[in-house]
Amino acid sequence: MATLTMVGAGMMGTALTFPAADNGHDIRLVGTHLDTAIIESCREQRFHPRLKREIPAGVQPYFHHEIAQVLPDAEVVGIGVNSRGVAWAAEAIGQHLRPGQIILMVTKGLAGTADGDLRLLPDVLKDGLPAAIRNRVSIAAIGGPSIAGELAARRHTSVVFTSRQGDILPTLRDMFATPYYHIWTSTDLVGVEVCVALKNAYTLAVGLAAGLVEAQEADSAGAQMHNFAAALFAQGLAEIATLVQHMGGGLETVYSLPGAGDLYVTAQGGRNTRLARLLGRGMTYSDAIEEMPDETIEGIDALLAIVPAIERAIQGGKLAADALPLLRRMYQIVTRHEPIDFDFDSFFGQLPFGQ
Amino acid sequence: MATLTMVGAGMMGTALTFPAADNGHDIRLVGTHLDTAIIESCREQRFHPRLKREIPAGVQPYFHHEIAQVLPDAEVVGIGVNSRGVAWAAEAIGQHLRPGQIILMVTKGLAGTADGDLRLLPDVLKDGLPAAIRNRVSIAAIGGPSIAGELAARRHTSVVFTSRQGDILPTLRDMFATPYYHIWTSTDLVGVEVCVALKNAYTLAVGLAAGLVEAQEADSAGAQMHNFAAALFAQGLAEIATLVQHMGGGLETVYSLPGAGDLYVTAQGGRNTRLARLLGRGMTYSDAIEEMPDETIEGIDALLAIVPAIERAIQGGKLAADALPLLRRMYQIVTRHEPIDFDFDSFFGQLPFGQ
Repeated sequence: MATLTMVGAGMMGTALTFPAADNGHDIRLVGTHLDTAIIESCREQRFHPRLKREIPAGVQPYFHHEIAQVLPDAEVVGIGVNSRGVAWAAEAIGQHLRPGQIILMVTKGLAGTADGDLRLLPDVLKDGLPAAIRNRVSIAAIGGPSIAGELAARRHTSVVFTSRQGDILPTLRDMFATPYYHIWTSTDLVGVEVCVALKNAYTLAVGLAAGLVEAQEADSAGAQMHNFAAALFAQGLAEIATLVQHMGGGLETVYSLPGAGDLYVTAQGGRNTRLARLLGRGMTYSDAIEEMPDETIEGIDALLAIVPAIERAIQGGKLAADALPLLRRMYQIVTRHEPIDFDFDSFFGQLPFGQ
Repeated sequence: MATLTMVGAGMMGTALTFPAADNGHDIRLVGTHLDTAIIESCREQRFHPRLKREIPAGVQPYFHHEIAQVLPDAEVVGIGVNSRGVAWAAEAIGQHLRPGQIILMVTKGLAGTADGDLRLLPDVLKDGLPAAIRNRVSIAAIGGPSIAGELAARRHTSVVFTSRQGDILPTLRDMFATPYYHIWTSTDLVGVEVCVALKNAYTLAVGLAAGLVEAQEADSAGAQMHNFAAALFAQGLAEIATLVQHMGGGLETVYSLPGAGDLYVTAQGGRNTRLARLLGRGMTYSDAIEEMPDETIEGIDALLAIVPAIERAIQGGKLAADALPLLRRMYQIVTRHEPIDFDFDSFFGQLPFGQ
């Protein structure tokens, strides 16, 4: 029996407590300042209102002001805030951390820095920790196709746990692996984080098809646009490989659960897909986002963070001038409301295997 | 202006005449003995009853007994029969072929031989041609995500034309490429044919999820099984890579349109998906197939042809004993009605990049 303190009581952070609780661990679920209503519901009714499900008996809910009570003695500290909340999380946990603790980031992806570079979110978190503790804790992250509601329903979910410090991965796997939660391990933290960030952006491209169909007069024979979506899916995967290699990650990550698997599942639904459909119908991004108030669209955040950094890398000669044509075109579509058309001839020019 | 004679007036063969007709070529569409009603409709009303669409003005329909009139002077002969009809097609066209003609196979995939080996369908066709002409014609094939009804609706469709004789590919691309039909070329005929065959088989696995959900009591929070499907998608792609490499094909084919793109589009719907859903609900294969009479389920044909050959390759030491666990488990599920469960631990052990 070990102790897990999960900071952030959103859907994914909470869902991850289910397999750990099923394994008999002692779990503390700490809401952020955005999660007060969730924690109240969890305390009073043992019911998570967003997951729409009872929380496991082994999970104890706490408000964020109670974090000092439940963080120092945890073997594992989960970070389940949204991707914009990582700096806040570093601040909130920093003073309570103890040497030897393992931080498991449910929050994942890339952030753009002020000077236009890209940083992995685990590194952003680490930078935000006090210098005295920063190098005395270990950080791991999760990639792969994992819809929170399905994990909480204890349905088969297959993921990759990753850390630059590979020695902590067996401990984490033992804590979370169950007959429904299948865990592979990898030290390719870079590859996993790049895949996670980009799958949201490419889902915006794949999801355009549904809206484009709706914007046209109905086809007499009922034709959809799956061929179009599939080509963008394949090109998206090729571009993920390009950026993963550029940043020093590995192809085995792109072409397994964190890349192909997660891009597949993300394209099946969710907020990125809903926004893409609105764009496909011809809405501007600013109009579309008004239809989805108070929602973080991770694909948009990823585009806005990543594409300027890519343009700088191209200007600096670190990436080919014709690299990542789909991602860069999506940026134009979103930020300048350019028409939804693609130069298909620019696709599939840079497969990482040689041609 | 060139002449295309397409043998087989099913959905895909006919759809392929649309871009060629739009390019102004002279097209003859020859029905097989199974296509008589289609050709009658095309002659009398210029309407293809399965595509539910008018055929282009440049397309002239013919019955199969008229093949001698329209085949010898065609620059390109298309083969659009179903995958079981390739030997018939070889017999039907063999005596009418002329040296220098290009055969473009819309029909694609693998066939199991009597002694348990696997053959590419273009090679099966070639074997069926008279010896005098066999080496005096060129053979090409098509891979990639291409739903026929969408191509006939002139919606963006992206494919790979492939041939061992790369010098014929520019001619073919010029004949078919349009602003909506995007063609890449490749000499990896082996990779394309293996991808085409296997995507149908793996779609059977991905599609189980929908039926499994229906077979359970509805989840109170509405959880589906997309995580399960996505893991099988990713493992399917990894196994396609294993078999492509085993047969001498290239990874660039697996991780672009013919592999990832086509597996994606095939999993969005169609006959393989419908059958998989019935299996997922708990039906035996023999019961499920009765719900879909007169339909060729290509994923089943692929499983039945490929898995026995794989078991032989494993026994002969040519493939690892633990290779292709998902494909082999699907074979057990289909042929022996074994339960739908998978040894997830057996997955992702053999990514082709090293780990």
